Amino acid sequence: MKIETAMLKDFARGAAFLGTGGGGDPYIGRLCCAHAIEQHGAPELLPLEAVADDANVFSVAGMGAPTVLVEKLFSLEEAHLAVSKLERFLGRRADAIIAAECGGINATLPIGYAAMRGLPVVDADGMGRAFPSIEMVSFNVYGVACTPMVIANEHGETVIIETGAAVAAEEIGRALVVQMGASVMLSCYPMTGAEAKRTGVAATLSAAYGIGRAISAGRSAGQPVAALLAYLRTTPYYCHAHLLFEGKIVDVQRETTRGWVLGRCVLEALDGRGARLEIQFQNENLCAQRDGRVIAIVPDLIVVVDRETAEPITTEGLRYGQRVSVLGVSAPPALRTSDALAVFGPQAFKLDHPFVPIEILAATP
Amino acid sequence: MKIETAMLKDFARGAAFLGTGGGGDPYIGRLCCAHAIEQHGAPELLPLEAVADDANVFSVAGMGAPTVLVEKLFSLEEAHLAVSKLERFLGRRADAIIAAECGGINATLPIGYAAMRGLPVVDADGMGRAFPSIEMVSFNVYGVACTPMVIANEHGETVIIETGAAVAAEEIGRALVVQMGASVMLSCYPMTGAEAKRTGVAATLSAAYGIGRAISAGRSAGQPVAALLAYLRTTPYYCHAHLLFEGKIVDVQRETTRGWVLGRCVLEALDGRGARLEIQFQNENLCAQRDGRVIAIVPDLIVVVDRETAEPITTEGLRYGQRVSVLGVSAPPALRTSDALAVFGPQAFKLDHPFVPIEILAATP
Repeated sequence: MKIETAMLKDFARGAAFLGTGGGGDPYIGRLCCAHAIEQHGAPELLPLEAVADDANVFSVAGMGAPTVLVEKLFSLEEAHLAVSKLERFLGRRADAIIAAECGGINATLPIGYAAMRGLPVVDADGMGRAFPSIEMVSFNVYGVACTPMVIANEHGETVIIETGAAVAAEEIGRALVVQMGASVMLSCYPMTGAEAKRTGVAATLSAAYGIGRAISAGRSAGQPVAALLAYLRTTPYYCHAHLLFEGKIVDVQRETTRGWVLGRCVLEALDGRGARLEIQFQNENLCAQRDGRVIAIVPDLIVVVDRETAEPITTEGLRYGQRVSVLGVSAPPALRTSDALAVFGPQAFKLDHPFVPIEILAATP
Repeated sequence: MKIETAMLKDFARGAAFLGTGGGGDPYIGRLCCAHAIEQHGAPELLPLEAVADDANVFSVAGMGAPTVLVEKLFSLEEAHLAVSKLERFLGRRADAIIAAECGGINATLPIGYAAMRGLPVVDADGMGRAFPSIEMVSFNVYGVACTPMVIANEHGETVIIETGAAVAAEEIGRALVVQMGASVMLSCYPMTGAEAKRTGVAATLSAAYGIGRAISAGRSAGQPVAALLAYLRTTPYYCHAHLLFEGKIVDVQRETTRGWVLGRCVLEALDGRGARLEIQFQNENLCAQRDGRVIAIVPDLIVVVDRETAEPITTEGLRYGQRVSVLGVSAPPALRTSDALAVFGPQAFKLDHPFVPIEILAATP
């Protein structure tokens, strides 16, 4: 299957959903992608199982505060600078491009870049959602080295980082993002096809497209949230999909620190019975508590959507008075193992609650 | 000439003098150097004019706050990690090692590293003194590219930086120093022998040794400051050497910011007539004003030494009550051109006074 321009609107909306509040507004990524497809043609969406074992698979992603990305546009030239620098450093050329995270801008960017390079983009990523740190990907959990990692900015400046641990690459990268202009492009976790197949989360780009299509179709039928939930229940990963809460936003606290958006949001139920939901976030939504009880927690997905249109709302888009539906969705199984939870489970975000799968929380009276 | 262990004490003392208050305490560098010479043998001190045009010349230096270097020791292993990473990145091996600055620790470090590698160390550097920033070297002023630059730390982590301007490399490097542990090793300005000859400041390592020897000999004769001044007047660069002030330190203000030691020091004359000298510094001494009139200014050298022993005192070593002599010394001519002054003249340090050579200031009534 090729990714055509006509698919991008649904694709970007689905990617915003999988961004679980983070990953930046995918509208800019969509425009950038559409331009690349117009110039270079539609890229092939390559199923993960179809990638050759010895293929060279390169990732590309943006890093920085979403609040900055809105005003400071990026271009595929910087993405190319990062990837091509890594190719030269390693002495091998990319055979395929892979997304590190299929949430928000970082889902559309690899598609545009694959189009520009005339390469296929793999239908997979490293999380099936979005996370705020470089070490928080299945590639790292299951043993692909994060570095060498290249960071590039709009001035043509590049930095090649080599560390033992992915978390050290994140810390060095984070210091550089601030210095190099608050948003940069990077390429890391260079891997073989065999490694991508062993460690990647399959079929997540096509899932993003499916989610976007379900929302569009649901709008035509007047029931977008219901249509979205129905679609999610047909997928292999996101099958435990629950409507957690319907309410009005009554409080939002938010601060931008070290390139992250940190804060919390409080909702009040619309039925007038006074129930409250509190959502805590670090770029992405991390934990939802209803009247003090945890009802969904990272790495499971917590997504705030507009109650009428099911349009996903990013954490920087949350506003007092919005009427929203909050959905809780199961994360891919590879994200729920004990190895995975050590990297991006509740403790990794300094949350005091253990991980309990959404389907168990939902079944608890 | 080979640099033998017996020469290191004088060499380090002379390097401390050329550090003009900065460059860190060379005692640690001396120990590190002595150990390397003991293990690997004495390195050849290669006159700059004897370097082959096509030789590969690599620099090595430490970067970080001198106040941190005192407590966090470095090793030649980190220096080797930085240089060898740059060699592999460029695909060429070092034929000789050069100092970027021959003041303080960064004068002794390249000698120890050259010993470890069995390579000659070039009798030259990029300033004939010390400066607080990576772009402040004659190599940059006269057209050698600062990058690719490698930074390495004690955890074996490395970063390869490529920028257009040396000042951008400094800014990125500065952000990394803080992140990577406040002191790191780096290799930058990789150059050919022809470039070293065109842009380097010659005979500065041997001058450091000569300065140290003059102080030692002067102590035996009971007149170390006079002996030091007499020696300086015989050198090609440091020939305008003046005793600016003799006094007691009555005030020191100092703060550590972004890996620099910034501040000022006030002295009162010993003759009881009430004259005061104020010295402003950023790692290195930048400007000396006697009763409000500038009597020496960067890039000329301003050095505070103990009045009795002529032992150079670093800016972090300045203490209330010390009896000191303050010397003003002419910088090498290559540091006084308009191109050079644009990079490390008074304006580069945000000083309000123009550069006037020490010999003219000294002749002004």
